[in-house]
Amino acid sequence: MEKSLVKVGLLGFGTVGTGVYRIIQAHQEDLWKQTGLHIEIHRIFVKDIHKTRDISTPTNMLTTNIDDILHSDEIDVIVEVMGGIEQTKSYILTALEQKKHVITANKDLMALHGGEILSTARANNCDVFYEASVAGGIPILRALVEGLSSDRINKMMGIVNGTTNYMLSKMSKEGMDYQEVLAEAQALGYAESDPTADVEGFDAARKMAILSTLGFRVAMKLEEVDVKGISSVTKEDIAYGKSLGYELKLLGIAERSDSKIEVSVQPTMIHKSHPLASVHDVFNAVYIYGDAVGETMFYGPGAGELPTATSVVSDLVTVVKNMKLGTNGLGVVAPYVEKQLKSDEEKYSKYFLRMIVADQRGVLAKVTQLFADHNISFKQIVQQPYNGGKQAEIILVTHTSAKADMDQVIEKMESIDMIYQLKSCYRLEGEGR
Amino acid sequence: MEKSLVKVGLLGFGTVGTGVYRIIQAHQEDLWKQTGLHIEIHRIFVKDIHKTRDISTPTNMLTTNIDDILHSDEIDVIVEVMGGIEQTKSYILTALEQKKHVITANKDLMALHGGEILSTARANNCDVFYEASVAGGIPILRALVEGLSSDRINKMMGIVNGTTNYMLSKMSKEGMDYQEVLAEAQALGYAESDPTADVEGFDAARKMAILSTLGFRVAMKLEEVDVKGISSVTKEDIAYGKSLGYELKLLGIAERSDSKIEVSVQPTMIHKSHPLASVHDVFNAVYIYGDAVGETMFYGPGAGELPTATSVVSDLVTVVKNMKLGTNGLGVVAPYVEKQLKSDEEKYSKYFLRMIVADQRGVLAKVTQLFADHNISFKQIVQQPYNGGKQAEIILVTHTSAKADMDQVIEKMESIDMIYQLKSCYRLEGEGR
Repeated sequence: MEKSLVKVGLLGFGTVGTGVYRIIQAHQEDLWKQTGLHIEIHRIFVKDIHKTRDISTPTNMLTTNIDDILHSDEIDVIVEVMGGIEQTKSYILTALEQKKHVITANKDLMALHGGEILSTARANNCDVFYEASVAGGIPILRALVEGLSSDRINKMMGIVNGTTNYMLSKMSKEGMDYQEVLAEAQALGYAESDPTADVEGFDAARKMAILSTLGFRVAMKLEEVDVKGISSVTKEDIAYGKSLGYELKLLGIAERSDSKIEVSVQPTMIHKSHPLASVHDVFNAVYIYGDAVGETMFYGPGAGELPTATSVVSDLVTVVKNMKLGTNGLGVVAPYVEKQLKSDEEKYSKYFLRMIVADQRGVLAKVTQLFADHNISFKQIVQQPYNGGKQAEIILVTHTSAKADMDQVIEKMESIDMIYQLKSCYRLEGEGR
Repeated sequence: MEKSLVKVGLLGFGTVGTGVYRIIQAHQEDLWKQTGLHIEIHRIFVKDIHKTRDISTPTNMLTTNIDDILHSDEIDVIVEVMGGIEQTKSYILTALEQKKHVITANKDLMALHGGEILSTARANNCDVFYEASVAGGIPILRALVEGLSSDRINKMMGIVNGTTNYMLSKMSKEGMDYQEVLAEAQALGYAESDPTADVEGFDAARKMAILSTLGFRVAMKLEEVDVKGISSVTKEDIAYGKSLGYELKLLGIAERSDSKIEVSVQPTMIHKSHPLASVHDVFNAVYIYGDAVGETMFYGPGAGELPTATSVVSDLVTVVKNMKLGTNGLGVVAPYVEKQLKSDEEKYSKYFLRMIVADQRGVLAKVTQLFADHNISFKQIVQQPYNGGKQAEIILVTHTSAKADMDQVIEKMESIDMIYQLKSCYRLEGEGR
């Protein structure tokens, strides 16, 4: 007999969980129109059953016993919005082994254990979807999965952390200092009291690990993502970048050439003609370069309870459709491409550098010779007085260069007397489109 | 007995039709993974069976008899990529009455007869999808349909014509004249020898009629879209706009407040901080303001054989999934909201004006008094010498004003001696984000 009702077990009943519950209650007819099945939350796993909540649920719906859900014969789908890593991972793996489909909004978990979870799902013909884990309100993972498999993705660039984008936007628009804007972001609740995960780029790195695992079909490990945060960014860098036509953004960049891959997160000068340069405040966006469809960008809110809960429910709709279609597990892209990481000799990009040098005859010749010795040439050079003319300041925009060469140049600068200080060195993107 | 094979009838075998045929041939396994069914092109309707084609098809696949497809018991889905309006409409209506689902890439048809086609589909429990008709490579219609019905859309702004966006981008970047850039676009094949449909905004208007019918659930008629093209845009306007922080774009704008609707296409000054200002060249983008998910933007190629064919195949996948789900027709949004159009008194926006006036004492007072008399106030006023100081040039950026008031001001300018010429008046968007 064919099912007419799908029962869902919810793990966690915080703000996102409550949002999911409310959306499912409120949109029964809409969900039925989309799937041809009725969907109900059957049980909810919580830590404390007696906690005061501003939402009422039927008697016996809440449980503190995880087995009521993981080993229930009635429940077909698990929605995990409780957070956490090791314990949560074991729940999810058990659920998959029990042939239950899984939806999760947990980016930490998917970034660290995505490969294992996806493979377990494939082995059990189960679905795992996690749209809300990257750029909450933007259907970016769906776009990567649903694109025909022939459309090879070559590069993904993303602004995937709202907190740092808010901070950099403020610094750019209002000329604020890093410390000043961090304090403001904390006061507004955009940044946490310990902002490390955001400002040091770790949150963005998790999302880039998830994106590249899915987009490139490899098991990208979190520790393989090169990460640099924004805590050393100065308002001067931003102002100088702007004067040459660039916005400074914390960009996640995943690219492959031939079969080799490079994934990084770092503050990057992006040319103002590129659509990512206009992504401001807490917004997120992911820019994708594919062979077939060309360049596309998805833009929207990166977080927020309602967008996140909406994403989770969209995943649920897909799982329920697949149940009826008999296609569960087929759309799960477990990593199958063997991964090769680029060496520093194989990582190419343009750079933006700013340095303080002696105000002496021949200094520019000396500096440019150093770069030329390592195969780095320039698109743009600006020299101007610094510190009332006692020193000079040089801004350099390079042509495409190898990271290994740039690292060597920076190392050798130390030994050149005329170069007092390398103020900054940023990757540069998006020019000449 | 459940079907395992879905047979498709293709109407038209030009570049898009050939692309669809090739994608379906090449991605059998992928399509099966997504739908759980096999999909094959069963017959293809062409005008001339003997025409030389650079693709070979099995014997008897091509037919010049439309009834071989419309009245075939074997065919479940029609894919229409032949173009045309009246004849094509009658084919599609017949197909729907024969309980065949329909996919079309035909924007002219959907803009003119979308309401009737969607209603016929609903009445016959059939699907009609037409993703490729708007912004070929961007899944914008899917986003509008799949969003939960609770997410009320309040405003959509789109760059939905690649030809004019290419032309305006060139004029902006390289300071070219309209005539010069049109000739270049024609030489490159971006503009047709008769460019009227593109440059006068008619193509964009068709897409906005389709978008607003779907987004607002009303039967928006093409003739109800206010249309102004770019043929009178000058490089001076673009340069002045730029100096104040705006890019000039041909924007389609659909908005509603309360239950009243306004849909238009016109060259618009959009602030450079808005993501649409960075959509250059032949790219398309649609920016959506919804209650639940907030602001999202979809960006990508607006046309091209491969993106368009890919869109058509994505629609086909949805139809085939729905066949197995038993949800055909349920996702078709036939217009059901009663439509009320805004009067000119109810249309509010900001404006950018440029005019040549006498270089006399009191001219600015006179000009601003005229606007003040009609409740229009200013955000920005720039006055500078013109024609070697013989006249003055005034640029005005207004606060939000009613269109009726602005029309009256423009009419009254005629009778003011000091105002020699109103050079331009553009709608203005996206500021203060």
